[in-house]
Amino acid sequence: MTTYPNYGRIEGHVVMIGFGSIGKGTLPLIQRHFDYDADKFSVIDPNPDSAAFLAEQGITHHQIAITRENYRDELGKLFPEGKGFCVNLSVDTSSLDLIKFCREMGVLYIDTVVEPWAGFYFETENNSERTNYALRQKVRDEKAANPGGTTAVSCCGANPGMVSWFVKEGLMMLTRDLGRTDPVPTAREDWAKLMQSLGVKGVHIAERDTQARAKPRPRDVFVNTWSVEGFIAEGFQPAELGWGTHEKWTPENAHSYDTGCQAAIWMERPGAITRVHTWCPTPGPQFGFLVTHNEAISISDYFTVGDAAKPDFRPTCHYAYHPSDDAVLSLHEMFGAGKQQQVHEILDVDEIVTGIDELGVLIYGHEKNALWFGSRLSNEETKALAPYQNATGLQVTSAVLAGMVWALENPLSGIVETDEMDHTRCLEVQTPYLGPVEAHYTDWTPLQDRWEHFPEDIDETDPWQFRNVLAT
Amino acid sequence: MTTYPNYGRIEGHVVMIGFGSIGKGTLPLIQRHFDYDADKFSVIDPNPDSAAFLAEQGITHHQIAITRENYRDELGKLFPEGKGFCVNLSVDTSSLDLIKFCREMGVLYIDTVVEPWAGFYFETENNSERTNYALRQKVRDEKAANPGGTTAVSCCGANPGMVSWFVKEGLMMLTRDLGRTDPVPTAREDWAKLMQSLGVKGVHIAERDTQARAKPRPRDVFVNTWSVEGFIAEGFQPAELGWGTHEKWTPENAHSYDTGCQAAIWMERPGAITRVHTWCPTPGPQFGFLVTHNEAISISDYFTVGDAAKPDFRPTCHYAYHPSDDAVLSLHEMFGAGKQQQVHEILDVDEIVTGIDELGVLIYGHEKNALWFGSRLSNEETKALAPYQNATGLQVTSAVLAGMVWALENPLSGIVETDEMDHTRCLEVQTPYLGPVEAHYTDWTPLQDRWEHFPEDIDETDPWQFRNVLAT
Ligand SMILES: NC(=O)c1ccc[n+]([C@@H]2O[C@H](COP(=O)([O-])OP(=O)(O)OC[C@H]3O[C@@H](n4cnc5c(N)ncnc54)[C@H](O)[C@@H]3O)[C@@H](O)[C@H]2O)c1
Ligand SMILES: NC(=O)c1ccc[n+]([C@@H]2O[C@H](COP(=O)([O-])OP(=O)(O)OC[C@H]3O[C@@H](n4cnc5c(N)ncnc54)[C@H](O)[C@@H]3O)[C@@H](O)[C@H]2O)c1
Repeated sequence: MTTYPNYGRIEGHVVMIGFGSIGKGTLPLIQRHFDYDADKFSVIDPNPDSAAFLAEQGITHHQIAITRENYRDELGKLFPEGKGFCVNLSVDTSSLDLIKFCREMGVLYIDTVVEPWAGFYFETENNSERTNYALRQKVRDEKAANPGGTTAVSCCGANPGMVSWFVKEGLMMLTRDLGRTDPVPTAREDWAKLMQSLGVKGVHIAERDTQARAKPRPRDVFVNTWSVEGFIAEGFQPAELGWGTHEKWTPENAHSYDTGCQAAIWMERPGAITRVHTWCPTPGPQFGFLVTHNEAISISDYFTVGDAAKPDFRPTCHYAYHPSDDAVLSLHEMFGAGKQQQVHEILDVDEIVTGIDELGVLIYGHEKNALWFGSRLSNEETKALAPYQNATGLQVTSAVLAGMVWALENPLSGIVETDEMDHTRCLEVQTPYLGPVEAHYTDWTPLQDRWEHFPEDIDETDPWQFRNVLAT
Repeated sequence: MTTYPNYGRIEGHVVMIGFGSIGKGTLPLIQRHFDYDADKFSVIDPNPDSAAFLAEQGITHHQIAITRENYRDELGKLFPEGKGFCVNLSVDTSSLDLIKFCREMGVLYIDTVVEPWAGFYFETENNSERTNYALRQKVRDEKAANPGGTTAVSCCGANPGMVSWFVKEGLMMLTRDLGRTDPVPTAREDWAKLMQSLGVKGVHIAERDTQARAKPRPRDVFVNTWSVEGFIAEGFQPAELGWGTHEKWTPENAHSYDTGCQAAIWMERPGAITRVHTWCPTPGPQFGFLVTHNEAISISDYFTVGDAAKPDFRPTCHYAYHPSDDAVLSLHEMFGAGKQQQVHEILDVDEIVTGIDELGVLIYGHEKNALWFGSRLSNEETKALAPYQNATGLQVTSAVLAGMVWALENPLSGIVETDEMDHTRCLEVQTPYLGPVEAHYTDWTPLQDRWEHFPEDIDETDPWQFRNVLAT
């Protein structure tokens, strides 16, 4: 029998909000790695589909939706002792309000995305308020207004989440490979200066998901390897990216901010139809979609040297996501039809016949050109590691596990993003679940492999300009 | 036992050039519907893969490639009698040179595309010479220079080909449905005036191919339902379309011509990465790719009223192709990698588990808004109709059959395109192979179902402007 490391005891109630693909996958990791009072564990999810499963496991299921109106009542009832852990893996619940309330109660908190209340993604009229910049900035403002206190971990999934730890690991590897002996920084400023001194220009969160089942994608069905609702919502947000100091050209339809961290810009275009040239080990050069993500902003912000408004250095950072082929087809159908599919399917670990989720950071612009550092987890290997999830799921849930461990070990650290956590400890907890974690240097740049027969609006003199990354 | 209509005797030798997916599917139709001397039938194809099959059928296989250097020798030898039929279903052979030589010999000729000699598609430097406009114009110039004589049918597949007959059928249906009693025109000018008087603004060749197999698309393999080589070649040609007199806006990167028929424009962009909003019965609104095709130019040219340079009326016409899902993924991979896949697969009729090829003409802009008229042939139905081909193949090969019948019946009509042939007779021959041939009116316009959250550069006052059709 395998024995799993025990990461300690969670005192008080444990409440998981949302029991979709990520919630279901996180459950066995919590069961495996923590002590807690089983009768104090419960799940909140309005969806009746998981009721039977939870009943089998003897887990209390509160079949309700958390809303702006009821969250204080419902969560207040479930945390009567002023302690415990709130694990938020739902959609349509406000991370900010839940963070505030949990900290008020002295309850540890973790989520994987800055989620807004239902309605935000499609009912907000002003695009600049519909960005992740806007969502994240409110959490950062809350942190600034109320520093310290009970730990609340914001955005601790695979990405956002784990990839911030990969950036740091990747930077240390690059440091060594460039023959340098800089120590591992501890302060934010030193990390930023290290990145700057390494000559890094930016980071792609470069992901290729090749998981697939042996069945043609049904028409009018959005198929994905994780939350369809989550992906559609972020896919229709404006394309958004952390904006580096090396950029000489700005897209015509770009907007910046003059309040907050000022690390990002957004474009007047849905992210999931905006293609970028990127690179992953398996395919080599590929298209990714410039879907907005918290980490694009947080990484650019974290590694800023100097003033927010006039920085000496800031990396460009954005997601470059090639989702599973079925999801690529689902996007093509959705944008072509001009409307969302009403039927959603998440590829199940047992129906997937092939594929890996290859998720890493492509750190570019330095002396060695570009370094991809990441997890190349196959669905097959996932089956052996943990139940109820595919490879995509496990990369997320193992980050949640790591974040929970860190929070338990650092219970009074206030509101944090993964950039601000001890990446070594977190990866120590997470890595056993990531399959091969590999580093690949590549000489690919976005100037390679362009169309030969057509002029493109690119900058031949400076390969890593975003102008060259953005596909035309 | 089914008996099939016999369309007469082909005197002399019958030589099929190219025995790929279309050649293989055309063979049984020729065997079924014509008398000819079996020992005078032969196939030229350099590919050894079909040798065994042809040997089994007792068909002579000349395993050579036809080239600019050898075509007169090789073909000359195979047509010793100054009569016969040359059925060109290959890639990399010059339609123009073969047409000239066959007519010189008195041999009937048919092809499904104006094919150039090998090298043209990727080695021509000047994009305006790499267009179908340029390819087609040379055939039209040859027709003008040498009118009449032995019949050579140019571009007689499904599209180009059959769809030109559908346009005429569709126009007559629209005429009736608008309560009009115009007779079926016989002269080109009258067809053009009919279209004009019906208020038609343009035509999409609107196709949705849903054929699929129960196997994930392998990486680095271009999968299609017909010639991969042909599709890649045309996909990398500039996007190109027949340009109508109702258009008020021209794409920035568009070019026109001041010689030849002047019916078309081309854009500085590969067609297969250029998306348009279009409509088919099965999906409703969808994205199609603006892949250049001969029919886009020939239909706009044929239905022109007035001067070529300053027409009173001309319809916009272009292909709006949603290929099979595996082909959509193949394109996404190819453009993302910046290079062509070296392994090619054509979905075989027996491995396809679902799907139809829905190929028709969307005639738009008139009083009833838009009429889709076309064939909705399933792969299942195809199996019952003819061997060795999927639905896509049969739509093409049955057009070749119809074109051959027409040529036999009209052996001295010179060089013709399908627009210039008797569409009623041709469809009479072809329709038994097309599955359901249906007409669908729709109130959809490209102004419907746009992104709600982002401004688009569209013309809200005039739904059928190409500006609204071109996706942003
Ligand atoms: N950071 C990352 O790497 C990462 C990766 C995947 C998913 N996520 C995020 O994790 C969350 C969950 O993803 P998933 O794949 O499990 O999604 P899912 O769609 O499978 O599940 C979401 C669950 O939330 C429940 N829910 C909906 N409204 C609710 C409400 N008001 N109160 C409580 N529960 C509610 C749904 O019933 C559903 O069971 C999403 O926000 C997603 O964006 C983050
Ligand atoms: N109009 C239409 O609707 C339509 C539809 C499909 C295909 N097509 C055209 O029909 C042609 C054949 O299509 P396919 O799907 O059968 O293609 P394919 O790629 O399956 O077959 C092409 C064949 O041509 C042979 N060939 C290559 N070079 C040759 C040469 N120099 N001499 C003789 N043979 C040569 C190849 O070996 C191959 O067997 C292509 O030009 C394609 O564009 C037209």
